[in-house]
Amino acid sequence: MTIKLYELAGAEDDRRFSPYCWRIRYALRHKGLDFETIACRFTDKHVIAFSGQDKVPVLVDGDEVVSDSWAIACHLEQAYPDRPSLFGGSAGQALSRFYVDWADTVLHGTLIRLLASDIHAHLHERDKDYFRESRERRFGTTLEEFTSDHAQSLQELKRILTPLRRTLQSQPYLGGDAPLFADYTVMGAFMWARSVSQVSLLEPDDPVALWRGRLLGQLGEEASRLRAYG
Amino acid sequence: MTIKLYELAGAEDDRRFSPYCWRIRYALRHKGLDFETIACRFTDKHVIAFSGQDKVPVLVDGDEVVSDSWAIACHLEQAYPDRPSLFGGSAGQALSRFYVDWADTVLHGTLIRLLASDIHAHLHERDKDYFRESRERRFGTTLEEFTSDHAQSLQELKRILTPLRRTLQSQPYLGGDAPLFADYTVMGAFMWARSVSQVSLLEPDDPVALWRGRLLGQLGEEASRLRAYG
Repeated sequence: MTIKLYELAGAEDDRRFSPYCWRIRYALRHKGLDFETIACRFTDKHVIAFSGQDKVPVLVDGDEVVSDSWAIACHLEQAYPDRPSLFGGSAGQALSRFYVDWADTVLHGTLIRLLASDIHAHLHERDKDYFRESRERRFGTTLEEFTSDHAQSLQELKRILTPLRRTLQSQPYLGGDAPLFADYTVMGAFMWARSVSQVSLLEPDDPVALWRGRLLGQLGEEASRLRAYG
Repeated sequence: MTIKLYELAGAEDDRRFSPYCWRIRYALRHKGLDFETIACRFTDKHVIAFSGQDKVPVLVDGDEVVSDSWAIACHLEQAYPDRPSLFGGSAGQALSRFYVDWADTVLHGTLIRLLASDIHAHLHERDKDYFRESRERRFGTTLEEFTSDHAQSLQELKRILTPLRRTLQSQPYLGGDAPLFADYTVMGAFMWARSVSQVSLLEPDDPVALWRGRLLGQLGEEASRLRAYG
């Protein structure tokens, strides 16, 4: 039975913008597993209600239903031990966790100030009010005000990428000579940006940009089949 | 031949404050290797000139002379493969690199605003002018001015520890159930702080504080034999 991945989509079914879902797309490709995806919207909570919670990604793998991108990656690693490893062993798995927490807080927290209005602009009509209301409550201001200072947010992004930039100056991937789930975790944020924003986030000669380009290239035609910029 | 570790010391030989040297102390203990240390001061460049550069830690292991804490850890891993691994495999080694770059930039960059004056106060007389002049040039202000807003710097520390705190909420060590070099890399910063400052950096119930306590406990009497606070 083919693996099913429930993913967040925008106005069009083929605009997939969730950074967490991108982590799993990459993870499934890494494992060489076939899968089909089901486009969901923020307000389609009923579509994934069977998972016992209300957030994508949700993975259905035979009888198993797994939500949360980290839990899904751990499931894939355990269920398909003969496929290429996402972590490179148990130490690598433990060491991957900080990348998740860094991306979820520092990287996403910086990027959302660049992307929130663009995300809204690319949402399905039925999601727009939900997104605006929930995010404006969270941010304590309007989406437009929250994303008004692009120059400042780009500076901040450049600053918070300092440790990542240094690492990628000394090795091609976070996982070493080849990417691991830590790479996909961080790359998810750049796929999120790419799917809704035309803003160029990185200088072309930034080691982070070169790494991003390598990971994008790895997707092959999948990168161009889905709607995105740049 | 016993391994020799050249370490930075303060006014007293037994005040060892370099975060980079602490990474290696922990790494040597992890490998179960005997070693002796040689106390150096900032201005003792001649003492380590044989290493071809001017910074500690410097490790002398038989015929091998290695400087830079990351290079030393990699050397120990390669030279003593039968001892407990510092990385848990090649993926773990690659994944450990980001911890080094995060600690060197984000964590040290925040802590230095809390510690610079205290470091100066604990230096050997012959190091004081060198440290003040080089650091005031780097910071663009006096040590006193640079470290004047403790409350703000403690807030900033709490903030930048967010991803670390999250990770340590989900597992006891960065390396999983037991510490790895990634743990020692980050812990070095807290040993640096502890050796010169009486300021309490963490709330007692912070998962980072609990992790720090576990790693400190692991040092046993070594932690109390060297001069430090708290």
